Amino acid sequence: MAKLFFYYSSMNAGKSTTLLQSSFNYQERGMQTLLLTVAFDDRFGVGKIASRIGLEAPAVLFDGNTDLCVLIREKLDEGRIDCVLVDEAQFLTKDQVWQLSDVADKLGVPVLCYGIRTDFQGQLFEGSKWLLAWADKLSELKTICHCGRKAGMVLRVDENGNTVREGAQVEIGGNDRYVSVCRQHFKEAMGK
Amino acid sequence: MAKLFFYYSSMNAGKSTTLLQSSFNYQERGMQTLLLTVAFDDRFGVGKIASRIGLEAPAVLFDGNTDLCVLIREKLDEGRIDCVLVDEAQFLTKDQVWQLSDVADKLGVPVLCYGIRTDFQGQLFEGSKWLLAWADKLSELKTICHCGRKAGMVLRVDENGNTVREGAQVEIGGNDRYVSVCRQHFKEAMGK
Amino acid sequence: MAKLFFYYSSMNAGKSTTLLQSSFNYQERGMQTLLLTVAFDDRFGVGKIASRIGLEAPAVLFDGNTDLCVLIREKLDEGRIDCVLVDEAQFLTKDQVWQLSDVADKLGVPVLCYGIRTDFQGQLFEGSKWLLAWADKLSELKTICHCGRKAGMVLRVDENGNTVREGAQVEIGGNDRYVSVCRQHFKEAMGK
Amino acid sequence: MAKLFFYYSSMNAGKSTTLLQSSFNYQERGMQTLLLTVAFDDRFGVGKIASRIGLEAPAVLFDGNTDLCVLIREKLDEGRIDCVLVDEAQFLTKDQVWQLSDVADKLGVPVLCYGIRTDFQGQLFEGSKWLLAWADKLSELKTICHCGRKAGMVLRVDENGNTVREGAQVEIGGNDRYVSVCRQHFKEAMGK
Repeated sequence: MAKLFFYYSSMNAGKSTTLLQSSFNYQERGMQTLLLTVAFDDRFGVGKIASRIGLEAPAVLFDGNTDLCVLIREKLDEGRIDCVLVDEAQFLTKDQVWQLSDVADKLGVPVLCYGIRTDFQGQLFEGSKWLLAWADKLSELKTICHCGRKAGMVLRVDENGNTVREGAQVEIGGNDRYVSVCRQHFKEAMGK
Repeated sequence: MAKLFFYYSSMNAGKSTTLLQSSFNYQERGMQTLLLTVAFDDRFGVGKIASRIGLEAPAVLFDGNTDLCVLIREKLDEGRIDCVLVDEAQFLTKDQVWQLSDVADKLGVPVLCYGIRTDFQGQLFEGSKWLLAWADKLSELKTICHCGRKAGMVLRVDENGNTVREGAQVEIGGNDRYVSVCRQHFKEAMGK
Repeated sequence: MAKLFFYYSSMNAGKSTTLLQSSFNYQERGMQTLLLTVAFDDRFGVGKIASRIGLEAPAVLFDGNTDLCVLIREKLDEGRIDCVLVDEAQFLTKDQVWQLSDVADKLGVPVLCYGIRTDFQGQLFEGSKWLLAWADKLSELKTICHCGRKAGMVLRVDENGNTVREGAQVEIGGNDRYVSVCRQHFKEAMGK
Repeated sequence: MAKLFFYYSSMNAGKSTTLLQSSFNYQERGMQTLLLTVAFDDRFGVGKIASRIGLEAPAVLFDGNTDLCVLIREKLDEGRIDCVLVDEAQFLTKDQVWQLSDVADKLGVPVLCYGIRTDFQGQLFEGSKWLLAWADKLSELKTICHCGRKAGMVLRVDENGNTVREGAQVEIGGNDRYVSVCRQHFKEAMGK
């Protein structure tokens, strides 16, 4: 009866902090957690989950070719895992989300995924799309727009603060170029 | 500050009942609601939202070509609308979900959408996909699997009760051919 | 691992409709439900749960002296119960809420309670107080104030529509004397 | 339309971390927050909110005699406040919870309260009781029992790890004497 959880948000809502706190809670009770994050995110160094507020912990890296159910089964052979926590879950492939559902359903280990819902053009990330489809529980981690409303959308801005309306979904190089806004300010900035 | 709500569920969870109760609540307070549903659903007659438990109310029909923001703006010209309620929201197009976000953001009318999350193969419906992406608030209407767990997935079964694994996403002809199950029983039945 | 759920709301949000729909969902899957409601509520006749929108079903009556765990254990001896649904749960005693937690924890039957959070003076009902304390999951059934905001509070009004500020918590005689409002309109009406 | 939020949990779920992350989010967007905590909590020094995971921030202290609406109105006269965050909210008085609802309703500033739901005997804390009654939104911050289930209850244990069944609701001297457990393990430990 283990579950697959998806904690979704826009940028800079504190996903990594929440993930690290949950892991800490497990460990404090003498339980073991496995932290996973994607390999191409080199913002905070290889093999770490770090939050802007100053917390960090080591994490196992994976890329789009990793079979996460196989990886976790192997880790289980090495020792106890009470909970799997996945950062940057928006970058999971469709197959990997299904594999994580198998970790809950077939290996009996709860999986907590943290990811961004939509990209700077309002399109769904692949991992988020299938977590929204299949997770047992969807929870929003809230952050706020500069206007005080909840910020559910993400804008990409250039070095002058101007909205970037076109480009690749992922641009390696940090989150200083993204800003979370409410849907009304997203529409205004994108001219929609 | 009106919001776009998405109440998602598997089949036969009571979406239409919940929609009709919400509309009733508005009307009871002297407020006006606009009920919308898709035209090709002829299960309960043209221009009605009906629930299996025995409730029904007239509804405006639309199809994939209707601009819902234009339609609702026209209705607003005719009279007050305090809330728009959309049944079978899984069949909305991507554009129509965006139009409904405009109804909330630009016309200031709250929009409540009710729809099925995934189809009989576990794939997202188009309308649900974009409501999961853009709605201000996601709420699950729960129903149960025959095993007592929450039923988040839908199976299509033939007249003998056997699982149908292939076919079109939508097959006109009633919901007696669908059954809601938990993800574990979905996997078992689909051989996944 | 059965759970105790509390669906709370102000007046006239559709609690009984939601309860009856949930019971219907269980029965439709060939499962058995037990419906309970308090004896002194004679609005809709003895031994019934009825909703303003037109649905009803027979229910076992209990009063403040009934040991609900004993009652349900006896019913279980007579036959299968997959879910217990309790209407008017605000009138439960503290002991009865604990007994219902035992039904979940010790008898393994999920319990769904539906009740009003606070009375016409903004004070907690006894049953709601302990359900808010002990339930595994708290869910709000929303309704709206005449101003369009969520209505979380309840006012008692006399035959002329004037707010009644003093009196007994429960006054037998129907819900036409109660109106759900947002906290701001509650404060205005109560002079707080 | 500012709201009063109550984030409730058992002990050691990460309430202070979540509070500090929310405050950080506001400040990162150039907004101002006011942090409040009760004066008699000297675990982490006077005038601080600190989390076990290693974060901290200065906070304004108050006790049971402070009128929080007056205090916040005075702070507003000194400068902008976009959000008020209250730690240890279980220790608020009934009057103070109402005052915080006024901060939302009359001063228009959102208030986020973080507190423990029930004490080591399963009884409601005063502040939590009225936040459960009046808050616009109730959200659970989850932590886990040693058995893997959600931990909704709190036990007090002595230096030998034995459950303490009697005593004052609050015992100054740190949280090393409290452990969060599921309701079933609470009943077992308390002999209920």
